[in-house]
Formats: sequence, structure tokens, C-alpha cells
Amino acid sequence: MNLQRLFRPERIAVVGASDTEGKLGYEAMANAVEFDGRVYPVNPSGEGEVFGEPFVESVTDIEETVDLALLAVPAHVVPDVVAECGEAGVGGAVIYAGGFAEAGGEGEELQEAVISAADEHDVALLGPNTSGFVAPASNLLASFAGGVERLRPGGVTILAQSGGVAHQLAFSAHREGRGIATMVGLGNRANVGFEEAIPYFDSDPNTDAIVLHVEGTDDGRALLEACRDSDTPVIAYKVGQADVGDFAESHTGALTGDHALYTAGFAQYGVPTVESTTELFDAGQALANSPEPEGANVGVVTAQAGPGIIIADRLQRAGATLPDLAADTQDEVGEILPGITYAENPVDTGRPMPEFGDVVEAVAEDEHVDVVLVYELFEEALGFPQETLDGLAERVEKPVLFATEGPAESMADDLDALREADVPVFTSPERGADAAAALARYATLDDAAAEEEVSADV
Amino acid sequence: MNLQRLFRPERIAVVGASDTEGKLGYEAMANAVEFDGRVYPVNPSGEGEVFGEPFVESVTDIEETVDLALLAVPAHVVPDVVAECGEAGVGGAVIYAGGFAEAGGEGEELQEAVISAADEHDVALLGPNTSGFVAPASNLLASFAGGVERLRPGGVTILAQSGGVAHQLAFSAHREGRGIATMVGLGNRANVGFEEAIPYFDSDPNTDAIVLHVEGTDDGRALLEACRDSDTPVIAYKVGQADVGDFAESHTGALTGDHALYTAGFAQYGVPTVESTTELFDAGQALANSPEPEGANVGVVTAQAGPGIIIADRLQRAGATLPDLAADTQDEVGEILPGITYAENPVDTGRPMPEFGDVVEAVAEDEHVDVVLVYELFEEALGFPQETLDGLAERVEKPVLFATEGPAESMADDLDALREADVPVFTSPERGADAAAALARYATLDDAAAEEEVSADV
Repeated sequence: MNLQRLFRPERIAVVGASDTEGKLGYEAMANAVEFDGRVYPVNPSGEGEVFGEPFVESVTDIEETVDLALLAVPAHVVPDVVAECGEAGVGGAVIYAGGFAEAGGEGEELQEAVISAADEHDVALLGPNTSGFVAPASNLLASFAGGVERLRPGGVTILAQSGGVAHQLAFSAHREGRGIATMVGLGNRANVGFEEAIPYFDSDPNTDAIVLHVEGTDDGRALLEACRDSDTPVIAYKVGQADVGDFAESHTGALTGDHALYTAGFAQYGVPTVESTTELFDAGQALANSPEPEGANVGVVTAQAGPGIIIADRLQRAGATLPDLAADTQDEVGEILPGITYAENPVDTGRPMPEFGDVVEAVAEDEHVDVVLVYELFEEALGFPQETLDGLAERVEKPVLFATEGPAESMADDLDALREADVPVFTSPERGADAAAALARYATLDDAAAEEEVSADV
Repeated sequence: MNLQRLFRPERIAVVGASDTEGKLGYEAMANAVEFDGRVYPVNPSGEGEVFGEPFVESVTDIEETVDLALLAVPAHVVPDVVAECGEAGVGGAVIYAGGFAEAGGEGEELQEAVISAADEHDVALLGPNTSGFVAPASNLLASFAGGVERLRPGGVTILAQSGGVAHQLAFSAHREGRGIATMVGLGNRANVGFEEAIPYFDSDPNTDAIVLHVEGTDDGRALLEACRDSDTPVIAYKVGQADVGDFAESHTGALTGDHALYTAGFAQYGVPTVESTTELFDAGQALANSPEPEGANVGVVTAQAGPGIIIADRLQRAGATLPDLAADTQDEVGEILPGITYAENPVDTGRPMPEFGDVVEAVAEDEHVDVVLVYELFEEALGFPQETLDGLAERVEKPVLFATEGPAESMADDLDALREADVPVFTSPERGADAAAALARYATLDDAAAEEEVSADV
């Protein structure tokens, strides 16, 4: 299935567009008109214009071919509307309405009818039962939620089974000064599921990492194979260790399945798993903005021992290793800071100081180190070691993560500067450690999965 | 030991005060002069004034009795300075310098000398090897770190073994619009450790909850007994599951000990433990701003199913239970929202709507529910159910927590209003669930500890 016209349309239509504030067709249209391309409001009972665009009676009346239709219509008319879209040559449709497979019974039949209509004309369906998707780089706001116009472009694509979780992840990223490539709520996955979306975004030039929120799917193997075949790094958050089956099935019509099996499966296919939405996007951000890590050895530099101990503890429990630094690195650190508080790994400088950046650089250049994690409480007189961190990851060809905390108002500009320079930034020692550990696991699992693939080919 | 003059002084002295920017004695003085009471800069080589206060040669030269001395002096002179403070009738001293027990050898002897000098005159010592403490309500900034003047008053007291972690917790709280009662970095705990500080803050009228960051201590039982005897709720974060012994010992001279033993001990003495700094302060905030929870039954109301499933999953894994709602609650919810998406627990309204607050109220009044957790993505047209949430916890006499996410700029004012109304607010489904689960564990453990105490008395 070709998802290009669904996710990267040139012309879109909002079917069920409305000029009545508060209606779904109004909210969807209000967002859609932000799009850089052409937008057609479609409604047989619409009169005049809405957001400056004249109403059209039917998608079949539009002279140009529409790529994407956003369906702000009730569930029971969706099969007919999809058929009409197909006849008009529409390539993709977003179905916002609920009341399909997740509702059971007649809802399941309705979903089957939609899929048949779509199959006949090769229409790619996002949903039903989704709040849609957003691609900030082209101002494509195919979601009815308010505030999505504020989201900024970035390198991480979010593929969430739940539209609510997709939006939560995107808004959370935004609150922390991060952007997104595309944010997708898959919903009921009528004919576009993880296994279709992952390969599409793997080949998307804007996507540097893909993060998955998975409740459950009927074809776990297809999901895992799509992950394995992706050159773009993939991280997964599988929900449902405790019993949430009944509630989950009422949500997107999916069985949550066995959590342990999923986790083992992901590991086998080279995908690290995480245990929260925060960890998920943090790991995605770290992967998107970093050279590929080559192994699980993390070198830690901290300006405060307490957070450093937290980091050392957490890294080791999450699958990373803390190697001894090379002898020449230890010598160098000792020369930079004679009488340093602790010169093993973590290196602890005792407090921020002008030489802090030089210590970070020495550890980053250590051949025993695959991933660098730096922690420092902000000190106004010194700022962050911006000059050292800017471009360091590219220079040493390994990920360099920075975790910090401090008076929000004082450090805001310096934090923005680090983000501008594409340094992955985290606001607690645990978040920094979790992201570094996810990189470490990614390096290890990816190698293992590659070997397995080779031996399977032989 | 009386800690009143250490933590609630009327007059303070900064020994080693300096007018040279960048020096510890300058930074400490810059912060100290914010204090609502009198501040004396002490330095035998000081001339004229610093920050508008005339230099004094020695603490013994000050006519009024000083309660608290902040010692911005090198390690080797600390024993003499403490003795001098004792002679001058000083009640407490903060020792910023490192190079004591954490350094081993001569450092240990130096610490012994300091303790002897303090014991002779009954001086309570914070540190050595600490960045100090801060009490925003009286503008008492007994820390040399920049930016602490921005911290606002609140109900949570932070007792951290590491000064760095204490500051990280306080700045993190501040970044999220939260205040603190007192923030303390204990450092080497020469004669003020957890077992002295916990009872003091238990009786502090500004403290509604105490959060502990523990690396290790020589007398675990004394710590646990202080926790058990505290009427103020205590939550603990014990670092060091993996091997961090060598680094940790170099930090505050403490053995990290056996993590499992600590966790079991805390549980036995009625203290829930958590696994991150974020979780620690979140739990403290929830306890400080809530009526005591009576049990582990959490009623969840969500406007989005996806985050609701995450919450249901996480709550159950963290020791909370999701009870069936009472029949009359289910009827009431069905009357408020006919055709509601999911009316079990979690209650899922499908999306935010004007009736959302009424649903929350119905669940909060359910007699099966001990703790209420609400999740809702912000929608600009509706805002948060502010009117319902304001005062609801007091009315139903149970904790009511609110987790959310949304476009940061749009929801900022509404979030502030909720915080103003003392509603504990969390910015991810996992953080909300973790805080609710901590309340659930607190209720369960506290009962168990109380019973054990009774049976031990018998």
C-alpha cells in the first residue's frame, strides 16, 4: 500500500467541513487550512465559504485530484464516503469517528464495509477511531485537536496506537522545546497499521527515529519484521503488563496480548523497549540526534556526585556498562583537574568549573567509551559547556547526551542554545541515564538482530 | 540535639565572607543577605562592608548571640572555627568544605575533630561536604548555589544525603510551579543525620510531607525508627541497586549497603519507596496537598482511553488496586453521559466535555474509592474542570490527583489556577499513576506499620 498520498498530500479535502464552531467538522477544517497546499471543504449542505474556502458538494465534484480526505462524518456514512473518495481518486483518508471494531458487533461489520470500499479503490485509511496525524514541516494538521499548530518540526516520528497518546507525546515534546517529524495516531488500523506505517516512515527523509506506542496487534510478527527491516532506529513502548485487556479492547479493538512475549520479540528483532511515554520520546530524541552508538559502554562526566551516583546506578540496571577509562584519559583528566574529586567512571569534578568542558572532551575521545552522558547543575556564572558540546558528537562519532537542572528562568537561554545545536538535553539524572541506556541497548540488540538475520540467510 | 537554631535562626553569620566575586565566601554571603533576619559577615582580613554589612573579625566579637554560622572556610581550619562558634554561643553551623570523612585518612580525623569541637558546645552541624539548605518562607538561603532565591514556599521538605540532589529536586519542583518548605543537603552528617532531621521537620509547621534521598547510612535502624515515629508522611528514594559503592563512598563517606534490605525496612516501617527523583517529589507533593488516603483503591477518570490504559496498567503494577465502582456510581455516570465510552474503572469519557467534572465528582464520591486520579488532555474551548477540582479533595476527604498534557502556552494559566487551588498536578499519565500508587502504598504500609507497632508494644 502506498502511503505517500496519505501522509504527504499536495491537496486535501475536509469531508463534513462545517462553519459551526465546536463541531468536529469545524475543528478539523480550522486545523486543515493551515496546510501549505490546497484545502477543499466538502459538505452537500454547506453554503458559501468556510475559512475563506468555498464549500464543494462532493469530493467527486473537485476538478483537481485530491490526495487526502479528512472524514469528519458520523460512523454510519463512512463506508459510502470512502467509496466516493475512491471513485474520485483520493489516495488516503483519515477516519475520526469511533463506533467501529472497538465497539464490537455492528461496529465490526461497519469496519469491514469500510475496508472493502477502500480496497476497491486502493485508499489508505488512517483510523477509524483516531484523532489523526500532524506533520509540522508542511503545516499539515490532519488532527481535530486544538493547539497542534504550535508543534514544531523535528526528527522523531511518533506512531501511537492511541491518538490520545500520540497527542500527549507530541505536546510533551513541544513543552520541552523539541519538535517532531510526524505524529500519527493509528486508531483501529483498518488497513494502515504498524507494519505499513513503519516502512513508510523509514523512507521518509524527515524521520531520523521512530517511536512506537503499542497496545496490541493481531499480527505481532509483521510488526516485528517491519521493525527489523527499518534502517531508521525504532524504539517501542508496549503497554499492558497488568490486566487491562477489557478496557484496552474497548479502545482500539486490539488484544493486548502477552507483554513478556512482545518485549522478548522486540529485543530479538533489534528494538529496545521502554516503560513510559517520557522514556519513549527521550530515547527517540537521543537516537534521532546522535551518530549510531557502537556499543553499550557509557562514559559519565558529572559536576555533582549525588546525581552521578543515581546515573551510575540506573545505567547499570538498564543494560549499559560503565567501562574503566583508558589510562591516557585518566592521565589527561588528572592534568586538566589536579586533585579531581573522583577520576574513575563516572568522572566527578565536584562542581561546575571552567575546565568542565575539557574533561567532557577527554572522556568523549576515550576509545573505551561508546556513549557519553554529561550531568551538571546549571551555574549562572559559568553557563553550560556550549562550545565543547556543539558538534562534539559528530567529531567523536558517538552520542553525547546532556542532563541538567537549575533555576528555570536563568538557564532557559543556555538550554535553548544546546537544543539549537542538536544536543539531546534531559532534565533529570534518571532521564539522562534512561536515554543513554536505551542507546546502549539499541547498539547491543541491533548487532544481535543483524547477526541473527545473517545466520538465518545462511 | 536541638535543630531549631540551625534551621530557624534569627541571626546568622557568614564566616569567611568575602567581597571577591566567584569566591565561596562571596556566593554564600550574596545568598545569606536575602534573609529576613540579621546577617553578619565574619572575616579577620575583611575591610569595610560587603553587601552593605560591616565585616566583623570573629564570631566572638558579635554582641548579639548568633544562631547559625555558615562556614565558607577551608577544611583544615573548620575545627577551630567550630570551637570558636561554640564559645560564642552559636547553635548551628553549615560546613560547606569537602575533604573530610568522604576523603578517608586524614579527612576522617579532621571530621572527628570537628565533631568533638561541636559536641563540647552543643553545636548542630550540617555537613561537612554539603551545599547547605534553603527555607524560602523566611528567605533563608544557607546555600552557596546561584538561583536559590527563586525557590518559592511550599509544603514539601527535602532531606537529601547529597547537596547536589537536594538542589536538583528543588529546582525541578520550581520549574514545575511547585514550592518547598525546606531543602536540605545533609552531606557527611557529622552530627545531624536523617534520624535528627526527620523528627525536627516532623514538628515543623511548614512541612506537610518529607521526602528522603538516601545513599546509605551507618545506622539504618535509627533512620527507619525516625520515619516510623514521624506523624508527617515520609517517602524515600534509596539509591544504589547496582554496584556504586566505591563512587558513593567517595561522595559522602557512606556505605550504600543492601538496597533490598533498605526497601524492605522502609516498607516495614510504613515508608513507601520510589525509584527516581521525579517520582520522589511527585509523591511528596501528592501527600503534602492531600487528605490522608485510607486505602489502595484508586478510581480513575480519563478523557482519553490510551493514557487511561497506561494509567490502569501502571497503577496495578505499583501496588494500587482498581476497584469496581459502586452500582449507584455507575448509574450516575450513565445518567451524566448516556452512551459513555467505558463506564467501568477507569471511566473513559472518550474526550473532554462539559460534563467531565460531574463524572469526576461522581467517582470521587464513590465509597469504594480511596484515591482519585483524573487524566485529561487540555482542550482550549473547555479548559480544566477547575470548579469541580477546587476543594473536591477536602469535600470527599480523599486525595484527588490531576494528570494532563497539552499545548504548553494555551494551558499555562489554567494549570497555574489548579496549582493555586492546591490540586496536585502531573504532566504525564505515568507520573500521575506513580503518585497515586505511592499514596496507595502509603495507606497500606502505614496501617501495617501501625499494627506491627501495637503488637510489639503488647
